[in-house]
Amino acid sequence: MRIDVLTLFPAMFDGVFSSSILGKAREKGIVELNTVNFRDFSNNKHSTVDDYPYGGGGGMVLKPEPIFAAVESLTDPLASKPRIILMCPQGEPFTQRKAEELSGEEHLIFICGHYEGYDERIREHLVTDELSIGDYVLTGGELPAMVVIDSVARLLPGVLGNETSAVTDSFSTGLLEYPHYTRPVQFREWAVPDILLSGHHANIEKWRKKQAIERTWRKRPDLLAKYPLGKEERQWLQELQDGKDTSS
Amino acid sequence: MRIDVLTLFPAMFDGVFSSSILGKAREKGIVELNTVNFRDFSNNKHSTVDDYPYGGGGGMVLKPEPIFAAVESLTDPLASKPRIILMCPQGEPFTQRKAEELSGEEHLIFICGHYEGYDERIREHLVTDELSIGDYVLTGGELPAMVVIDSVARLLPGVLGNETSAVTDSFSTGLLEYPHYTRPVQFREWAVPDILLSGHHANIEKWRKKQAIERTWRKRPDLLAKYPLGKEERQWLQELQDGKDTSS
Repeated sequence: MRIDVLTLFPAMFDGVFSSSILGKAREKGIVELNTVNFRDFSNNKHSTVDDYPYGGGGGMVLKPEPIFAAVESLTDPLASKPRIILMCPQGEPFTQRKAEELSGEEHLIFICGHYEGYDERIREHLVTDELSIGDYVLTGGELPAMVVIDSVARLLPGVLGNETSAVTDSFSTGLLEYPHYTRPVQFREWAVPDILLSGHHANIEKWRKKQAIERTWRKRPDLLAKYPLGKEERQWLQELQDGKDTSS
Repeated sequence: MRIDVLTLFPAMFDGVFSSSILGKAREKGIVELNTVNFRDFSNNKHSTVDDYPYGGGGGMVLKPEPIFAAVESLTDPLASKPRIILMCPQGEPFTQRKAEELSGEEHLIFICGHYEGYDERIREHLVTDELSIGDYVLTGGELPAMVVIDSVARLLPGVLGNETSAVTDSFSTGLLEYPHYTRPVQFREWAVPDILLSGHHANIEKWRKKQAIERTWRKRPDLLAKYPLGKEERQWLQELQDGKDTSS
């Protein structure tokens, strides 16, 4: 997969693109990551990329020309137009399902604004997707682009090693994860639950499922509402709602 | 504000902590950012920080000792315990309101796991907050910590300049932003709406409010449901729902 990122702050990506999973994915040749400073595509001698908003008001607005020119420098030689993703608070909320969808693409282009708004013509006539990673205000689209790229890249075949891909991720199953414990059995005054030391795999499996249901019910009832509960799971949930102790 | 980040990948933070707003906030002395590699607090000669899960299953689990030791090396000299924030998918969904709350703290400590789960005793007996930035799977807590730090730091007095702080941010108002336009008036076949060139401020204000309502209604009805509509706004919404053209 090829990923191009349009940004005024390419240095922000250095550490993230060379460490850990993304660094390894690049080394293995699975992902090609490239930043483009769209200031280089400014059509004026002061290299400005933003200007005052028509109609007044505070804040600056990113001009259409440099961003259209930067994107077209990437796409003009191509036979088919790749997905062009604008990171912005107005975008479609990013989800694991969207990550899976994007991981099937061969080429993604991300546009990251910074402080400023985008001229609406960029949104209407250039991009194919608008994504938001959550309902909070950030100083730019760079961190959101890194988040989307990380979540997409880890789904590409060969990126995660066997030791990590087997993890039962939250959101992949639709429930929050059950509690994990490792050595030591006794850490200060806190011990690992006996059940996990029992060696009884069926009971452990059942305990974990119950814990996942209980945790999701307590912390994220919105997720549980979307989860297709089996018969036994519905019964556990009923016991939780009735206030019975289901922890054993 | 002082911010410490526990991570196995401190280099991931280099670009983000030295660029743009966070770089400036550090230069001005408003934020002190510090990474701690908790591998340095491993209590074994191989410097391992994770181990197999009790009860079996895939994936590794972060051991409690190195993380407790790293946090306590920071907090033991302090008179009062700072907020200790675990970045994890099971956490409370991060919101703008949470960013505002955290921006009132003097000291924050972030714990970032990577691939692995956390030993449950970290969650139960060490941390004060668990945060998730969204319902998608990432390879570690590093990017989520950067997202939270960016959103908190930009709220600190003196961090944003006047030119940026005046922007009407989405989520600060409860609605998505209205469309922005800047020069040129005509870009290719697409022109700036006449209303924004009219100089009639009251009409422009009204157009923008309508656009913000319409955009939120079309893209994020969940946000609109929480927004306290005024009388005129309720009327616009009714017109939208009735399918009338309200764009002029």
